Amino acid sequence: MTELRKRGGGGGDPDSTDNISDKEADLDDRLGTDGECDGDSKADTPDVPLSTADTDNTPQYLNKALEGLPPRWKNYWIRGVLSIAMISGFFLIIYMGPIALILIVMTVQIKCFQEIITIGYRVYHSYELPWFRTLSWYFLICVNYFFYGETLADYFGALVQREEPLQFLSRYHRFISFALYLAGFCMFVLSLVKKHYRLQFYMFAWTHVTLLIVVTQSHLVIQNLFEGKIWFIVPISIVICNDIMAYLFGFFFGRTPLIKLSPKKTWEGFIGGYFATVVFGFILAYLLSQCQYFVCPVGFNSETNSFTVECEPSEIFLMQEYTLPATLQNILTWKTVNLYPFQIHSIFLSSFGSLIGPFGGFFASGFKRAFKIKDFANTIPGHGGIMDRFDCQYLMATFTHVYIASFIRGPNPSKVLQQLLMLQPVQQLGTTWEYLVVKKETHSTNNNKKKIGCFIAFFYVDLRINFNMLHGEQTVPILKRYRRS
Amino acid sequence: MTELRKRGGGGGDPDSTDNISDKEADLDDRLGTDGECDGDSKADTPDVPLSTADTDNTPQYLNKALEGLPPRWKNYWIRGVLSIAMISGFFLIIYMGPIALILIVMTVQIKCFQEIITIGYRVYHSYELPWFRTLSWYFLICVNYFFYGETLADYFGALVQREEPLQFLSRYHRFISFALYLAGFCMFVLSLVKKHYRLQFYMFAWTHVTLLIVVTQSHLVIQNLFEGKIWFIVPISIVICNDIMAYLFGFFFGRTPLIKLSPKKTWEGFIGGYFATVVFGFILAYLLSQCQYFVCPVGFNSETNSFTVECEPSEIFLMQEYTLPATLQNILTWKTVNLYPFQIHSIFLSSFGSLIGPFGGFFASGFKRAFKIKDFANTIPGHGGIMDRFDCQYLMATFTHVYIASFIRGPNPSKVLQQLLMLQPVQQLGTTWEYLVVKKETHSTNNNKKKIGCFIAFFYVDLRINFNMLHGEQTVPILKRYRRS
Repeated sequence: MTELRKRGGGGGDPDSTDNISDKEADLDDRLGTDGECDGDSKADTPDVPLSTADTDNTPQYLNKALEGLPPRWKNYWIRGVLSIAMISGFFLIIYMGPIALILIVMTVQIKCFQEIITIGYRVYHSYELPWFRTLSWYFLICVNYFFYGETLADYFGALVQREEPLQFLSRYHRFISFALYLAGFCMFVLSLVKKHYRLQFYMFAWTHVTLLIVVTQSHLVIQNLFEGKIWFIVPISIVICNDIMAYLFGFFFGRTPLIKLSPKKTWEGFIGGYFATVVFGFILAYLLSQCQYFVCPVGFNSETNSFTVECEPSEIFLMQEYTLPATLQNILTWKTVNLYPFQIHSIFLSSFGSLIGPFGGFFASGFKRAFKIKDFANTIPGHGGIMDRFDCQYLMATFTHVYIASFIRGPNPSKVLQQLLMLQPVQQLGTTWEYLVVKKETHSTNNNKKKIGCFIAFFYVDLRINFNMLHGEQTVPILKRYRRS
Repeated sequence: MTELRKRGGGGGDPDSTDNISDKEADLDDRLGTDGECDGDSKADTPDVPLSTADTDNTPQYLNKALEGLPPRWKNYWIRGVLSIAMISGFFLIIYMGPIALILIVMTVQIKCFQEIITIGYRVYHSYELPWFRTLSWYFLICVNYFFYGETLADYFGALVQREEPLQFLSRYHRFISFALYLAGFCMFVLSLVKKHYRLQFYMFAWTHVTLLIVVTQSHLVIQNLFEGKIWFIVPISIVICNDIMAYLFGFFFGRTPLIKLSPKKTWEGFIGGYFATVVFGFILAYLLSQCQYFVCPVGFNSETNSFTVECEPSEIFLMQEYTLPATLQNILTWKTVNLYPFQIHSIFLSSFGSLIGPFGGFFASGFKRAFKIKDFANTIPGHGGIMDRFDCQYLMATFTHVYIASFIRGPNPSKVLQQLLMLQPVQQLGTTWEYLVVKKETHSTNNNKKKIGCFIAFFYVDLRINFNMLHGEQTVPILKRYRRS
């Protein structure tokens, strides 16, 4: 297995991949019992530094406490202890509020980016490429600036409208982001040197694919968070649970290999993990649905300058009575059951997380095999890099985001309201007036009704004008802000 | 120069790039006079097939007509004739209406994608990769489905709301797109074979970067088109004009080399091209601003099932009087000048197109050098591939898009209206009511006013309820459509 831990020396020569150490793969072909979402098992191999530059960063006290154990068991312990530590850390962070969560997501994202980019540098031996380390990080900053700016403008509308510099940044956000990115792009073009052309393009592509995978998707994690903490916690917990459950089921019952890419994964772990995860998700959904703290969208109250944690829970978090299908009625002798609709949604989330989610892990696993590395990095002792733990999380986050957009949220009334407020007063009048008149004229054949409709429309317009007059201080900045250049 | 036309035989080995034929670059180092946006000049070399599979596809009659000329002049003629043919074709297409334009943009996009992907296959000798040709095209279809669907839903809202199957597709558009993409992603993971791991990941990255560059940006071209044909024609014409002008200025006055990457480009061409393009853009903007056909946003009239070409021109297309700065007043002896504000915007567009736009060309030029190819393909005789002509167009389209979003368009009233119409009636009431009351409570300190405000709000809600009752046939489908799952 030691070959696995060496970097592929040959660099990017694809032809050479055909004939390098089949031995290592043969060794891997014996069946293991690892969790679904875990590229390579470390269960029976002690953690080995990625390169001579890295060192085994298992905490000293942990090494000392486990001194007497054989290496195999020592690694089990290290991995177990750190799993529990991470899960506890996760709960702690949840109670620290949305800002802490956003910072954590951002930190994880930056670390993942760094891990993947570092692999790129190693693969291409490209330490001496002009400017490139700087440019990669510069692109990361640009893309993050763009995404976080969009989120800020979306969810902190009230705050943004109050502060003059934020208004400017928000108004020209896309232009500023584009200009920043463009500066990096031009720098890249200017940094091209004949000696390294192809290498530089490879690293450009490597950086951009990483940005696509890591930054775009971690931005979705934050958007999910704003929909309510439950949309952040449940998907993450589902993936963690599926990891652990698939590992345990595979450990105790694993016989049949699942996929060549990750030879230690078994059908037993896959299927057992699925059922365990669905049950876990269903119960977790029940527990969290009861608490406003988890259920309410993260809102920002611009008057108290704090996050709101109270709301009228959406209907998917209100207990409802469901009639059971006839077959289940006979077995359970119940006719109806009380559930939060969110619990039903949680079944879909769990199913995705345990059936399709692992493909994120397989992808990462294939990537690691392609570049002859064992882990993305050596950040968490016994687990590998941060990216090794987050490979399925990102796919899950994207699914959750699409799921919310498609099945949970219609057009958001408060966002439409915000957009209405952002229009120029004259446009506002136009919109509402048009709305009433359009409705009227298209659907009424009765002349009398039409007259009433028009009267109402004009009456409303008139009232609105009066309103705007009364609150001149609100109208003027809007006008000023959105006057065309 | 013949080395340039051979594919880099060594495949993806980046180490080998360092020591391959410096000769070819030395040959290139003599100064040429090509246009800014043109990776490699073909002025003094006859077009040579890209590989033995390709053939010189110059039309037979053109070859015959130019038989007597020396190869150098023959190529000038071929290139010139086809330039004029393309520009005439462009004008013809403009008169064919928006659907034809969209189809053209789509065709160009698919051709560009095919050209870049084909280079990838050649670079990696990856013809025998399992499934990959299919998967690349499948990803192209998914991404296009996503982008075109978004545009359709945005601009054809009325049509979409009328047709039942379109409603379904529009409602679940993101989910469907994501599911389609995910199927491709899983297919990719399942298609991974030990023999080709690294190659397969390279091609995956190659496909995705191409999608990012070509599909995303060509989608922006279409969005610009919907803002008004002028936003489509002016940027494209600016890039074409800059290409030609930089070429001519370089040809007649070129002395000083501009950038190592494209040794035939000169500072004289760059600067001359800039001024010529600004003047051209200014005049073109003046001509097109007068005509509603170019100025009006492309709208879809769902009653006549046709595109609307009439509108109240936006204020940037209405002649305005500008006072000249004092220095200019003395020189010109005019005090004021009448301009369309769009003409001033055209100066910014031209400046971008001729100062930053060429970096798109440099990028493409560097890319071609990195992979030791002369042109992206051999589609247009004397010009190379379609991608050789569109390298700057895509960057320009993105700039135009960001420019419109940042400086031209505030929030679009008709889109807000559309979103309002898409809300459930109950939400609609909520929004408007909230709007009135929020405005009221936040800004009024007068108790009397508050009472009036609430009264108005309730009165309005009441009227709206009556409206919905009267037009039951409109209310019910909305309710049905947006009931949560």
